[in-house]
Amino acid sequence: MIEGLVQRLLFANEAFYAAFAMRDYAAMKALWSAKDPVFCLHPGWPLLAGQEAVLRSWKDILSAPQASPIQMTAPVAQVIEGSGLVICYERIPNAVLAASNLFRLEEGEWRLFHHQAGPCQMPPEEVLDEEEPPSLQ
Amino acid sequence: MIEGLVQRLLFANEAFYAAFAMRDYAAMKALWSAKDPVFCLHPGWPLLAGQEAVLRSWKDILSAPQASPIQMTAPVAQVIEGSGLVICYERIPNAVLAASNLFRLEEGEWRLFHHQAGPCQMPPEEVLDEEEPPSLQ
Repeated sequence: MIEGLVQRLLFANEAFYAAFAMRDYAAMKALWSAKDPVFCLHPGWPLLAGQEAVLRSWKDILSAPQASPIQMTAPVAQVIEGSGLVICYERIPNAVLAASNLFRLEEGEWRLFHHQAGPCQMPPEEVLDEEEPPSLQ
Repeated sequence: MIEGLVQRLLFANEAFYAAFAMRDYAAMKALWSAKDPVFCLHPGWPLLAGQEAVLRSWKDILSAPQASPIQMTAPVAQVIEGSGLVICYERIPNAVLAASNLFRLEEGEWRLFHHQAGPCQMPPEEVLDEEEPPSLQ
């Protein structure tokens, strides 16, 4: 039961980064919890609280002409107290970020309710070695 | 019931920053969950997973001679799916960080199981205006 939940949690986290990489706002919106509270801490930004502010930020980010490619790597997933926590690295051109993604179950599906990402100047070697970093398109 | 839990969550978060500011490792250790998994993403660091790695990092940070003063401000606390999430700002000399602190209840007390902090170059004005920033001692 828990194993299946963890696999689906990793899958939801993959879907989040797929929506990000594909700049697919509809998919991104569907991945976020339909219930408040939701929160988001983009790198360097002030806290965004509430669905409207969080989804508007994703709409802006995904439609920006200078949107960077992004590659998620080394996810660690845990179901703790009914929430799903995934910690992973985000590789973007010339930088690595570390991210925490928090999910809750809604109608049997993991949905995001908090995301924080920030620069990781000391990533583990395996994160850097794993594959070629994404290139600017 | 929930209201009391949120108040105690804010109190646990205050205690975390008090332990940090006082460089009190025993108090810091007592605030962390006694059960794995626990995680920590210090600014720029790779992920620390497990009690041993997380507590060792705090021991090192709190005993460092160049330890910076830290001031927590503008906490937002929510109990979601049995976990306690506090998002707040950390003011250190010449910078503001944004942090996510995740707690779970253990024997009726909120205990940390994940902390992430990263630089916030665009903090809300009220965070900058609230009080004097901490000065180096």
